[in-house]
Amino acid sequence: MPNIKFYFSPGSCALAPHILLREIGVDFEAIIFSDLRLGPLPEEFRVVNPKMRVPVISVDDEIITELPAIVTMIASLAPEMKLLGKTQLETVWVYEWMNWLNGTVHGLAFKHVRRPMHFTTDPAGCEGITAKARELLVESLDMIESKLEGEHPVGDAYTAVDPYLFVFYRWGNELGYNMKKYPKFTALVARVVERPAVKSALEVEGIKSTL
Amino acid sequence: MPNIKFYFSPGSCALAPHILLREIGVDFEAIIFSDLRLGPLPEEFRVVNPKMRVPVISVDDEIITELPAIVTMIASLAPEMKLLGKTQLETVWVYEWMNWLNGTVHGLAFKHVRRPMHFTTDPAGCEGITAKARELLVESLDMIESKLEGEHPVGDAYTAVDPYLFVFYRWGNELGYNMKKYPKFTALVARVVERPAVKSALEVEGIKSTL
Ligand SMILES: N[C@@H](CCC(=O)N[C@@H](CS)C(=O)NCC(=O)O)C(=O)O
Ligand SMILES: N[C@@H](CCC(=O)N[C@@H](CS)C(=O)NCC(=O)O)C(=O)O
Repeated sequence: MPNIKFYFSPGSCALAPHILLREIGVDFEAIIFSDLRLGPLPEEFRVVNPKMRVPVISVDDEIITELPAIVTMIASLAPEMKLLGKTQLETVWVYEWMNWLNGTVHGLAFKHVRRPMHFTTDPAGCEGITAKARELLVESLDMIESKLEGEHPVGDAYTAVDPYLFVFYRWGNELGYNMKKYPKFTALVARVVERPAVKSALEVEGIKSTL
Repeated sequence: MPNIKFYFSPGSCALAPHILLREIGVDFEAIIFSDLRLGPLPEEFRVVNPKMRVPVISVDDEIITELPAIVTMIASLAPEMKLLGKTQLETVWVYEWMNWLNGTVHGLAFKHVRRPMHFTTDPAGCEGITAKARELLVESLDMIESKLEGEHPVGDAYTAVDPYLFVFYRWGNELGYNMKKYPKFTALVARVVERPAVKSALEVEGIKSTL
């Protein structure tokens, strides 16, 4: 078994790969370098990830960043679990979901709402950035709801997309959106939080499902 | 052979998958729905991609969006070309590069420099957004240069990352950055533009390498 270290912050997007590590039942060292709810990542983290972002995973001293790449690595440790889908086409859908959730829903919507000061040199510009990002955020939540059909976002089984969607459901609630108005999204999350791996990840992170 | 339609705009990020389609030598219909240099995508495009973005590929009527997912599909049509890398670990690096280039370098840096008005409700806020994004853009170009070693960004052979990096080299030049100050990045692009598939993609798009 490889030597795995997983760097995360409680309640961050790292929750998704954290859940997947528990799903595959591998041994790993969980490292909370800092709690992003309390302050930024410390400068010492730069040697782990020069981009200064969590999640990061190291597997036998290979350091891997970017959530979809980390998920690709975790999935390869337990190929029988088909976390990237059962067929080639399902794998394409898993990457389509992950890239959109990562780049657009996280990067352009949620991150701009929560940290507008990262995106302008002008403090007076923050309000306009948050207002615009809230439009994209609502569009994104509507789009998630409209894309869901059946029990899982991809195919008929659990993939990496299920727990990744759960991250945004929690964040929607944290930002005060009424997530119950999305019945399919809510039903998906209700299934996700029943999984033992999800329960133990939430417990270790010391956070609630917000369902 | 599948029935493939590829929707793009000249000189956009779609250049990378466009090149890859020519690398694998598959038949496809190239559809320029609109030229983003002249104006936005027309409303009719919404039935193709509700997110109103190019590139889009349809393969036997499955419509796939998001560049890394499109690349995953193209790579699967010619597995012997190893466009996602030769080993499992190389595949992880290919997705790490693609996700960072897509979400951070494209989404947060270049797109904010070029279209700040997409990210604020306040026209007066655009200047501050562009200024901040130019900082991230330069950090990103520096990071690309520092990550490159050897002939290719991943492993010792051509993967999807090579032409994707070429897109950002062109855009850097278009925005007036002196890209020659990045010797490893420049050498990589010099190798990329020698490839017949790249030459024909540039010709069809009616654009220059800017090298
Ligand atoms: N594209 C990155 C994004 C990761 C990211 O933005 N993570 C947040 C936590 S949810 C973070 O590290 N933020 C630290 C900061 O913004 O200073 C990935 O996929 O890993
Ligand atoms: N995450 C998307 C981003 C694609 C994207 O932003 N494409 C640009 C062209 S480079 C576009 O369609 N822009 C249209 C617009 O912004 O209106 C992907 O990977 O496909």
